[in-house]
Amino acid sequence: MALLLLSTAERGEVWPRVFAAAGESIVVGEASVAEPAAIDHIACWVPPQDLSIYTGLKTVISVGAGVDHLPPLPAGIALSRTIAPGIETMVRDWVVMATLMAHRDMPTYLAQARNRLWRAGKVMAAGARTVGILGMGRIGRLAAASLGTLGFRVRGWSLSGTPVDGVEMFAADGLDSFLGGADILVCLLPLTGSTRGILGEALFAKLPQGARLVHAGRGAHLDMGALSRALDSGQLASAILDVTNPEPLPAEHSLWNDPRVILTPHVAAQTDAREGALHALAVIRAVREGLPIPGLVARERGY
Amino acid sequence: MALLLLSTAERGEVWPRVFAAAGESIVVGEASVAEPAAIDHIACWVPPQDLSIYTGLKTVISVGAGVDHLPPLPAGIALSRTIAPGIETMVRDWVVMATLMAHRDMPTYLAQARNRLWRAGKVMAAGARTVGILGMGRIGRLAAASLGTLGFRVRGWSLSGTPVDGVEMFAADGLDSFLGGADILVCLLPLTGSTRGILGEALFAKLPQGARLVHAGRGAHLDMGALSRALDSGQLASAILDVTNPEPLPAEHSLWNDPRVILTPHVAAQTDAREGALHALAVIRAVREGLPIPGLVARERGY
Repeated sequence: MALLLLSTAERGEVWPRVFAAAGESIVVGEASVAEPAAIDHIACWVPPQDLSIYTGLKTVISVGAGVDHLPPLPAGIALSRTIAPGIETMVRDWVVMATLMAHRDMPTYLAQARNRLWRAGKVMAAGARTVGILGMGRIGRLAAASLGTLGFRVRGWSLSGTPVDGVEMFAADGLDSFLGGADILVCLLPLTGSTRGILGEALFAKLPQGARLVHAGRGAHLDMGALSRALDSGQLASAILDVTNPEPLPAEHSLWNDPRVILTPHVAAQTDAREGALHALAVIRAVREGLPIPGLVARERGY
Repeated sequence: MALLLLSTAERGEVWPRVFAAAGESIVVGEASVAEPAAIDHIACWVPPQDLSIYTGLKTVISVGAGVDHLPPLPAGIALSRTIAPGIETMVRDWVVMATLMAHRDMPTYLAQARNRLWRAGKVMAAGARTVGILGMGRIGRLAAASLGTLGFRVRGWSLSGTPVDGVEMFAADGLDSFLGGADILVCLLPLTGSTRGILGEALFAKLPQGARLVHAGRGAHLDMGALSRALDSGQLASAILDVTNPEPLPAEHSLWNDPRVILTPHVAAQTDAREGALHALAVIRAVREGLPIPGLVARERGY
């Protein structure tokens, strides 16, 4: 019985050491699979198209936190996603950075610098702006806590609207009120059928005029055409994006050179190789002992 | 008896309202001074060259936190600098933003974006880097606390080396050891005779290779030629600067287009007009009642 790893060269070096220390078997790369029936777990970003040869397969382990890119799995195969502790704080750090960059007019100052222009605008205190966080899971709560400490007023939106200390919470049916007071909108939603395309014209129109967008969700949340129109009309002042639609952003796309937009290439977080291996080991042991699988994804819910 | 305000149009509108509400007299602009002998306080960034006509002058109040640009004052005239509460958290916010931008390779990603290039580098956890803060006054301690909460290891350097919770402190003679472990160096020093030009070749050489610089002190701390050479040699990987030398940075300066450098035009903080007026009122009352003057500057110490 072994885990098959289909991933980066770095993981291919680190995971076998972690597995050897734990006394577990691992095969790196499909070319190294001698006996497909002995593979009971596959850790990957994208699984092989044909899983039928892996007759003993019990779980597919996504090496990242996202699973929205995965096709449906055959019945009886569980899906686990890797949420390493380091992932959450990495995304939190990117969100804090991007929110401060939006708040402190970095798109304007970067554009001025390209034109060799030294011109100071008015500096606003953090307390003068409200940050609205779409998606109040673990990362959303971490971001809310850090941003609150910096003095921002923070509001959050989640399906349940479950109370969070120091955050003005809104539930599913409170979306319009939530948006109406969000000077900086941070998207940390999971991608599901109901959130796909949510960052579009109707949503932007409900924000205060001149609002700023910080997007660390998924590219498919975002209607890129609606974003450009909202920037052109002044409804949005700027956007800091770690994800785009499509992704990677094609070289010819107009957003690359839009002075109101700052792009990073999906680097809000990366799963640390060792942390990912430890997650996989935890899944293997849970399956063996019949315990709840860490990171188990409820596919009908989408996250 | 009155205060003479020599400052921006915004302060010229806000201060008279605050003074009127407090029952104090204010004159805005030297052209409005009917009786120079009645002026006992001048609030300004740069005072008039000839102060001799103000025979009743007791204090000069700098409308900002800096006083290094001020000429020596005649004996018997006190100097107060304005450190509004909002200033400290504004600078803290800029430092947190700039440190995260240095940590998360924003100079690289911005340069790639100008070339329409989507390429992710390795993401490092905050805990993998040590931030070294030069200058552990109130703003340094605020920045240390925020950066520590984000997971950075934080060390601080001050003349006294006074202990600070959660920070590895170094005193004056520990500068070399301090620098040797500073992956990201943050300058928050006051400008004095002994700190002028401190960010130069000798100091950069003591940092770990590939260190990053975040500068929110004064332009005159920085040897700009040494900075360019350290970037060229790889001793420094990048620099995020809110101040330059000279300032404003001339349009023809090579740093404007250096892809390893991000510049903001001295906007880490601005004194809020109302907060500045309240500081001036506090100075006026302290002088009248013979109490310690808020923000009194010990000129021989320089801050």
